[in-house]
Amino acid sequence: MCEDHTVLHRDYPNQLCSIANSLEVIGERWSLLIVRDVFNGNRRFGEMQSSLGVARNVLSARLQRLLDEDILERRQYQESPARYEYFLTAKGLDLWPTLIALLNWGDRYSPTPGGPPKLIRHKVCGGHVSERGVCEACGETLTARDAIQVPGPGRAAALAAAAAGESA
Amino acid sequence: MCEDHTVLHRDYPNQLCSIANSLEVIGERWSLLIVRDVFNGNRRFGEMQSSLGVARNVLSARLQRLLDEDILERRQYQESPARYEYFLTAKGLDLWPTLIALLNWGDRYSPTPGGPPKLIRHKVCGGHVSERGVCEACGETLTARDAIQVPGPGRAAALAAAAAGESA
Repeated sequence: MCEDHTVLHRDYPNQLCSIANSLEVIGERWSLLIVRDVFNGNRRFGEMQSSLGVARNVLSARLQRLLDEDILERRQYQESPARYEYFLTAKGLDLWPTLIALLNWGDRYSPTPGGPPKLIRHKVCGGHVSERGVCEACGETLTARDAIQVPGPGRAAALAAAAAGESA
Repeated sequence: MCEDHTVLHRDYPNQLCSIANSLEVIGERWSLLIVRDVFNGNRRFGEMQSSLGVARNVLSARLQRLLDEDILERRQYQESPARYEYFLTAKGLDLWPTLIALLNWGDRYSPTPGGPPKLIRHKVCGGHVSERGVCEACGETLTARDAIQVPGPGRAAALAAAAAGESA
């Protein structure tokens, strides 16, 4: 029941607001993290399942919803059995400013030990990307295709801690 | 059970990512719309309940979570019975770029008949605020306190349609 509610009815009826309309589409559990995964280059079901640790049936339902909403599109890369890779549409790519804002807010207020696990850089000049998706080095307002993600200091620290825990 | 899961455990365990960390805090159903309501000046429980149409117990739980997370703070405005108004903290105000990005994405891809129901304007010069929270007239990068919300063309159309429906 939890998982199906957004398919059966609107989460936010009577909300005369484009924020509510956005959350109808991407506010489900996992949906925005799936979009993030595709931004990060995890295009295949198995990669996403491994990255997210989400149940297969939930991931499958969320991917279908994102296809239905024209946020993702899929392209077959293998026959028998048929296998697909998922790509962001223009509508999906336009979620980048939302993700960048959430990333920066999380870095600031839910910091991970050792610093941000991920850093976003301007492809062309290597500058840091601000919470507004602007390159802090050259001042250009960026879109999804202008930016790359690189590991941040927090990622190395967290992976080291995880490795130490496993060997203990 | 649906409503309590985020209190009982983390939604996105093992997600080494500040986007996931942000969604732990504000990704619950209704939470971001409550934050939006306070941005819009709906500071009292009854105003929010009326605006959102959400069950009282759900609203109460979400408000408590937002207080616990230091996104909202409350100030008593009446004794016996005690009544409170809710205000955004600095952490809550810093969700503005996320909300602006979601608002613009919704305006673009889930448009309401007649146009956007809300428009965001720069207080000082009246310029339109971009999806990056930048004034398109004067070029200033804005924060929550620099912007005001005004009814958009879609709001008038939707209210007129609702009134016509009620009188039919």
